[in-house]
Amino acid sequence: MAKVFDAAEVAKHNTRESCWVVLYGKVYDVTDFLSSHPGGAKIILKLAGKDATEEYDPIHPPGILEEELKPEQCLGTVDVASMPKEEAPVKAQEPAQGPPPMESLLNLDDIEEVATKQVNQKAWAYYYSASDDKFSKKFNNEAYRSIILRPRVFRNCEPCDLSSTVLGHDLGMPIYVSPAAMARLGHPAGEAGIAEACRSFGAMQIISNNASMTPEQIVKDAAPDQVFGWQLYVQIDRKKSETMLARINKLKAIKFIVLTLDAPVPGKREDDERNSFVGASAPVPSEVKEGEKSNETPDVSQASGGVGKTLFAGTDPTLTWQETLPWLAKHTDLPIVLKGLQTHEDAYLASLHTPQVKGIILSNHGGRALDTAPPAVHTLLEIRKYCPEVFDKIEVYVDGGIRRGTDIAKALCLGAKAVGIGRAALWGLGAGGVDGVRRTLQILSDETKTCMRLLGVETVDGLGPQYINTRMTEQQIFDGPSGLESLRRDFRAKL
Amino acid sequence: MAKVFDAAEVAKHNTRESCWVVLYGKVYDVTDFLSSHPGGAKIILKLAGKDATEEYDPIHPPGILEEELKPEQCLGTVDVASMPKEEAPVKAQEPAQGPPPMESLLNLDDIEEVATKQVNQKAWAYYYSASDDKFSKKFNNEAYRSIILRPRVFRNCEPCDLSSTVLGHDLGMPIYVSPAAMARLGHPAGEAGIAEACRSFGAMQIISNNASMTPEQIVKDAAPDQVFGWQLYVQIDRKKSETMLARINKLKAIKFIVLTLDAPVPGKREDDERNSFVGASAPVPSEVKEGEKSNETPDVSQASGGVGKTLFAGTDPTLTWQETLPWLAKHTDLPIVLKGLQTHEDAYLASLHTPQVKGIILSNHGGRALDTAPPAVHTLLEIRKYCPEVFDKIEVYVDGGIRRGTDIAKALCLGAKAVGIGRAALWGLGAGGVDGVRRTLQILSDETKTCMRLLGVETVDGLGPQYINTRMTEQQIFDGPSGLESLRRDFRAKL
Amino acid sequence: MAKVFDAAEVAKHNTRESCWVVLYGKVYDVTDFLSSHPGGAKIILKLAGKDATEEYDPIHPPGILEEELKPEQCLGTVDVASMPKEEAPVKAQEPAQGPPPMESLLNLDDIEEVATKQVNQKAWAYYYSASDDKFSKKFNNEAYRSIILRPRVFRNCEPCDLSSTVLGHDLGMPIYVSPAAMARLGHPAGEAGIAEACRSFGAMQIISNNASMTPEQIVKDAAPDQVFGWQLYVQIDRKKSETMLARINKLKAIKFIVLTLDAPVPGKREDDERNSFVGASAPVPSEVKEGEKSNETPDVSQASGGVGKTLFAGTDPTLTWQETLPWLAKHTDLPIVLKGLQTHEDAYLASLHTPQVKGIILSNHGGRALDTAPPAVHTLLEIRKYCPEVFDKIEVYVDGGIRRGTDIAKALCLGAKAVGIGRAALWGLGAGGVDGVRRTLQILSDETKTCMRLLGVETVDGLGPQYINTRMTEQQIFDGPSGLESLRRDFRAKL
Amino acid sequence: MAKVFDAAEVAKHNTRESCWVVLYGKVYDVTDFLSSHPGGAKIILKLAGKDATEEYDPIHPPGILEEELKPEQCLGTVDVASMPKEEAPVKAQEPAQGPPPMESLLNLDDIEEVATKQVNQKAWAYYYSASDDKFSKKFNNEAYRSIILRPRVFRNCEPCDLSSTVLGHDLGMPIYVSPAAMARLGHPAGEAGIAEACRSFGAMQIISNNASMTPEQIVKDAAPDQVFGWQLYVQIDRKKSETMLARINKLKAIKFIVLTLDAPVPGKREDDERNSFVGASAPVPSEVKEGEKSNETPDVSQASGGVGKTLFAGTDPTLTWQETLPWLAKHTDLPIVLKGLQTHEDAYLASLHTPQVKGIILSNHGGRALDTAPPAVHTLLEIRKYCPEVFDKIEVYVDGGIRRGTDIAKALCLGAKAVGIGRAALWGLGAGGVDGVRRTLQILSDETKTCMRLLGVETVDGLGPQYINTRMTEQQIFDGPSGLESLRRDFRAKL
Repeated sequence: MAKVFDAAEVAKHNTRESCWVVLYGKVYDVTDFLSSHPGGAKIILKLAGKDATEEYDPIHPPGILEEELKPEQCLGTVDVASMPKEEAPVKAQEPAQGPPPMESLLNLDDIEEVATKQVNQKAWAYYYSASDDKFSKKFNNEAYRSIILRPRVFRNCEPCDLSSTVLGHDLGMPIYVSPAAMARLGHPAGEAGIAEACRSFGAMQIISNNASMTPEQIVKDAAPDQVFGWQLYVQIDRKKSETMLARINKLKAIKFIVLTLDAPVPGKREDDERNSFVGASAPVPSEVKEGEKSNETPDVSQASGGVGKTLFAGTDPTLTWQETLPWLAKHTDLPIVLKGLQTHEDAYLASLHTPQVKGIILSNHGGRALDTAPPAVHTLLEIRKYCPEVFDKIEVYVDGGIRRGTDIAKALCLGAKAVGIGRAALWGLGAGGVDGVRRTLQILSDETKTCMRLLGVETVDGLGPQYINTRMTEQQIFDGPSGLESLRRDFRAKL
Repeated sequence: MAKVFDAAEVAKHNTRESCWVVLYGKVYDVTDFLSSHPGGAKIILKLAGKDATEEYDPIHPPGILEEELKPEQCLGTVDVASMPKEEAPVKAQEPAQGPPPMESLLNLDDIEEVATKQVNQKAWAYYYSASDDKFSKKFNNEAYRSIILRPRVFRNCEPCDLSSTVLGHDLGMPIYVSPAAMARLGHPAGEAGIAEACRSFGAMQIISNNASMTPEQIVKDAAPDQVFGWQLYVQIDRKKSETMLARINKLKAIKFIVLTLDAPVPGKREDDERNSFVGASAPVPSEVKEGEKSNETPDVSQASGGVGKTLFAGTDPTLTWQETLPWLAKHTDLPIVLKGLQTHEDAYLASLHTPQVKGIILSNHGGRALDTAPPAVHTLLEIRKYCPEVFDKIEVYVDGGIRRGTDIAKALCLGAKAVGIGRAALWGLGAGGVDGVRRTLQILSDETKTCMRLLGVETVDGLGPQYINTRMTEQQIFDGPSGLESLRRDFRAKL
Repeated sequence: MAKVFDAAEVAKHNTRESCWVVLYGKVYDVTDFLSSHPGGAKIILKLAGKDATEEYDPIHPPGILEEELKPEQCLGTVDVASMPKEEAPVKAQEPAQGPPPMESLLNLDDIEEVATKQVNQKAWAYYYSASDDKFSKKFNNEAYRSIILRPRVFRNCEPCDLSSTVLGHDLGMPIYVSPAAMARLGHPAGEAGIAEACRSFGAMQIISNNASMTPEQIVKDAAPDQVFGWQLYVQIDRKKSETMLARINKLKAIKFIVLTLDAPVPGKREDDERNSFVGASAPVPSEVKEGEKSNETPDVSQASGGVGKTLFAGTDPTLTWQETLPWLAKHTDLPIVLKGLQTHEDAYLASLHTPQVKGIILSNHGGRALDTAPPAVHTLLEIRKYCPEVFDKIEVYVDGGIRRGTDIAKALCLGAKAVGIGRAALWGLGAGGVDGVRRTLQILSDETKTCMRLLGVETVDGLGPQYINTRMTEQQIFDGPSGLESLRRDFRAKL
Repeated sequence: MAKVFDAAEVAKHNTRESCWVVLYGKVYDVTDFLSSHPGGAKIILKLAGKDATEEYDPIHPPGILEEELKPEQCLGTVDVASMPKEEAPVKAQEPAQGPPPMESLLNLDDIEEVATKQVNQKAWAYYYSASDDKFSKKFNNEAYRSIILRPRVFRNCEPCDLSSTVLGHDLGMPIYVSPAAMARLGHPAGEAGIAEACRSFGAMQIISNNASMTPEQIVKDAAPDQVFGWQLYVQIDRKKSETMLARINKLKAIKFIVLTLDAPVPGKREDDERNSFVGASAPVPSEVKEGEKSNETPDVSQASGGVGKTLFAGTDPTLTWQETLPWLAKHTDLPIVLKGLQTHEDAYLASLHTPQVKGIILSNHGGRALDTAPPAVHTLLEIRKYCPEVFDKIEVYVDGGIRRGTDIAKALCLGAKAVGIGRAALWGLGAGGVDGVRRTLQILSDETKTCMRLLGVETVDGLGPQYINTRMTEQQIFDGPSGLESLRRDFRAKL
């Protein structure tokens, strides 16, 4: 490890046969690792012979390098003085000036606008993107706007209390940060910064399986009563997931496991993919290209793929009620929350799996998985129509499309116990780091309180369907024959 | 009071410890008043050591200064010649030229367009703003546009009579000016100018609790049969409200009290807040900023807030049917009109409080309180559907979204006794003073008459639901279980 | 009459006390006529002392001058050489070049676009304008677009026959030109030009009461089987209408009288009024202005008013079923068609007045009378729903919003016997004179035939409701309690 | 044929009396052919005396020339050196540079955008155009977007199989290329290129009756299991159709005949016609114009007409169930698929004609025939509502408006056996030749698979109505009295 390499020497090892990269000043021989990299060999080969730190750092939590590589693969250090300087192109991506004062940003649109200017193109594309035509992303929000509030007046609205609970744990507000990946792409404070902001408000955070920091780092400074969940994407290599679960079981701040079901395969996020294609057109050593061609798949569209698709590498698409829940029970005693349910049938099925399953998150993955999938509001209304008993058996949370306190109040009126924000938290982080996330939560807290006061409702529990007019939305929700009957029959047969 | 101060001397008193301001040429020591200013200390400290007249005048009715300050707090006069001159920035806000002839403005959009150019940025922001995404502001008008008229033909439509009554008082037209605050922000003629214009048409005016002139000034030149209401925002300091009620009781032109219920806490009017934030970024003496910081609330969003939020300071958010109506009965014998009802349940509750309550105003506060609250047309249809007997027990008025005579005719067809305009009157005032308000009322009068003639209806009483097709709107209104049953049960239990 | 005046001499007579105008080279003293001019004195005073021919000619049919003025009011002729020359401003209104070949215009939008460039601002404003926000004008067309066709296939669609009948008279196509006024504003060929184009296709024409040519001129070259109707606006001075009816009774080409009921008072056509206001701001002799002021009405909005309002002067707004039909029976034996019905109740009432009333035109006056009035398609559907027997008793025609052959086919499927075009004919005339109207009719004929062929229908009679899907529109039409019951009761009581 | 002509000599023969054209270097005397050219004489006369190859080639399949002309009409060859050179105008139409790499195009919109730049104006206008206001073209796609998916989760979604069958033949995907004409207008690879791309994916192709290549050429390289259909537009000259059927019967790759019923007469495609009109304004020898005038039809609109109308020349509009199916039975034993059904009544009628009729294609001809005709989704829903037994008797395919894999999945859920793309294939061809069509099919394949996986469905057969929410669309479909009763009565009467 004492050996010092000249950059020119490193640069020669830029082929599939001998592939070196520089990370944090050290030189690694990753030739043997190419075939097992979850994101594919190609993405490494593009950086072969070069310093890959800037690309690598914001999307890999610390410690991964040591886990994946053997000590002998670290060949030594690079002579920093010999490295080529890159300036202009990188600078060009940086915003000309810092963000405006956070308190001048009045709503979540303002924050997104500022973040759009502050973060680089890759982060913007990854955060902003949604699948296909972004129909569901837009619909997620519009569904809230088509619900009309029914304010009751002449009520004492001085007292107003946002406090709530999730699975028995106290929260300062019924708002949580969804398991959004890659926070450090947007700001170095990363997921730990989000945790810090949540701490100020008693908001809950669900840590992404693909966080750019380790769970241990994220919960390190947690308040005694701070509540975290941890998102699990089960890996094809189950051992990896079991190792992670073992680590999670040890973290007392993490109260439950969120098993994500709405994205067993990646959606088609074109903004993200387009960005990746731009990068892909950067010069690639010619013999690498040829090497690639030989084992190119006939599936052309898989050749590209943005950050989103890269993150999916290794995810197991074969999960089922029958197989996965028992496996999970063997590796954790934590309560399970199922994320990504989009029909009343699946919500009902989940409610049959108590006590292991204690909650569900109605979500279409922020419109990032299947375009024209229903917004959570539709699923809430479907459950109320076909099987309202679900609300008694398990807790129901929703995410997707939240931009205003009135949106939050409406979801709570329909039976949600808590409401998640995903992109909004990342935009907050991108706009102003920890203070940006605080500002985001502050705005939502204030708006929700104002909404509750103007509705004449004092507590979160006091919100109910009598405070909303969902007539327009109800004319859109599923009205066909429910799949419940056959589910009930199957279930009785099993007993 | 004989003492004359040099401007430089006054300028030194610009701290929380010693705070002087110049108003109408006099020097006041407001140090002790800082903590009790309803609008907060900060707004005064920004003007400390300076001439505050221009900021102060258009938003405070005369006499307030004398009420709030002791005689000895007036230290003397300022040497006008020593005052610094401000020109360019102020001039820049003024329109390059006066408005076009009022008779060239054909509709309320024309008038708003002219007013937008004539009034300064602060007035525009205060008048134009509505809460959040201005969804309800827009919906208020669209709800009228989605009602289709049903004109009957082959009827003598020469005679056409707009005369109407409110609580037994004769009106020349079923149109009133809603209690819109801060008229002098838009034009020096102020609320008295609105009164003058109303006089020409027999229109009713409801005087805002936050008028920029005193009620006495506004009704001073009232015609013998001119009808006014007075809006009450109950103050936390009830004595203040009781003093005002005593003054109102003496004014014979004021026929009823309008108790505003739709804005117990201020809505989030971002245009107004943004404007305020711009002002807030003006240089503030640094030690003031520090002083502020020490007792800064954690609620960041409260730090800013436009004219709207300032006006709300001191308003009591604890009003209830049980407590407030009896209290009010002790302080006035005037009929009570409740403003801001948005559900059939509250309309029904109001109808149980006769004879004290004689009328209700269906309103969502011009879209300025809770965004996505229902337009008055929805509430009218809700009442017709669930408890039409309300129309027999109390009078029902509506405001919000009126831009055309057809809008007025539609509201009257649905059972409203009178229809209010708020912003429209202020835009009229801003566009052309008294003549601008007259033009506004003239246009609405002409349009309403044309509409009635083309419907084949001769009098206001002749209008009814057979003249409108509300099919599209009816598909949007609340269709859930009514809260009436429990209200009726509670009411019977109380008897 | 032999006397020749110098222009300077004429120019002196520009006051209310002595008002001369030049028309077609002759000098008239119209001082005494000022007070009886149907369009008001003001419009004449603006031209006092000048050559008024250009303003006068395109909106007055020949012969009117002789009817209204006494021979001695013609003082002589003007010395043409002494007249001031006007060039630039007038030229500026003329299009830079002639229209493109008519056959290059593929649809009615193309034709309107060309006409917009060809006609002057006054004609454009008069033709284009509709009341208030032009909601009904737009809705008239959209109502057709929301009806979906149901094409039947595998049918012999070579034969296709557009021939039809109206009140027993044969037509070449079920299309007629509505009584649109002021054709010569758009093109010197005027209403006679429209008649010429109709002749080529066997289309029917309804002559406007306010045509810019006399009925005699318009029908002069009529083909033996050409069908005309004549529109009657009953005048306050009934004698005038009786004189006109006597003239009409003598014209064999005119087969019926169309009594217009949808505009008893003028709608508010702001484009037209705005144009007039522009004109009104032209220099007016100052003492005229003062003279005007003295007897100014308090109704400010009446002061302006475009071509539309001017035409309405003298129209009787007191017509009723009881009074007007018997009066009409005394003055003509021609069948009566009532125009402007917009509810099923009025359609039903009309059907009770056979045999005098033989037809009705469902119309909202092209959106020019009452804004947010229903499109004819709504009224057709209302009649089908509440009183389909109307179609058996009287013929039903519709106008408003027709831009495509599919629109025509849809109206016919719903029970209309013929379909009217108003603006479209005027745009055709403006775009290319007689050939422009021919092109308009040709396009509609071709499109209607193509539509019928693709629907699998051979004749106009073969069209029926089975060929259209009106589901979307049906969700918008009136669904309240019908006024029919009371009408039937009243009618039985009268018997 | 040995004779060599100078270009100047050829140029003299540019009249109706003597009309020569140059094609592929040979000189033809087409004077006698003028009157029998299916596209009309005018289009030839515009090229009289010139080299017509560039205009002729991309829209005529090889061999047609020999079929139509006698050997002696070929007079010899032209001296190429004597031909005038055309450069700039032609070059101007060509794109400045080639298309981007196909794999950078992420969706069908991208491909259309690139093709729009690559193909010439005539091809663009022919492909892009739809009838009238392109309402149905737009509605075709929007109908899919208003269907919401219902993804089921926690299912093993690794296996995913697009394979399907049509009339018993195996397909690699349930996608086919609709019979879109004139492929060589867009790219020289033409219909054979589409066939080559289909081969890579096991996609089916229906060969257009108006293909720019012969059926023999198109199927020449077909894979053993490749499936083709052949579209028949029955010609007025039935012999021509019978000759073609005889040729088709010999081609084993062609498995069925598609009889097109949705365009018995051409729709009005204005983009296409406008393009043609531009061409028509090119210099035409004056005496030709006069000659034309003499036998000009009164139907002005027929004078122009784009590629679309030209192709229709000679098509028989008299087809009926009674006459045409028996005639067809005499000339082919291939199964018949009826294309262009748009009502449940016609779908039902088709199902009565088994076993000859084995399938139907629900189609509004890509919005190119009758504007405001229903999208295929409407007809699918109509059949499900009124006569679902149709799906058991015959296979149902759909085309029109497909832009995403989710659209395909939705159509399959509603009962379609396969889904057609028309313009999309032509845009693919125009964008990148064979690779462009491959890219189009790859994108649709990938998107459909992703959609199926995220729905939790493994095979095409597994898709069903439980996976979609059609509530919004169902509120738009026909709800009137069905024509089925009378059809059933007629049918029983015939038995």
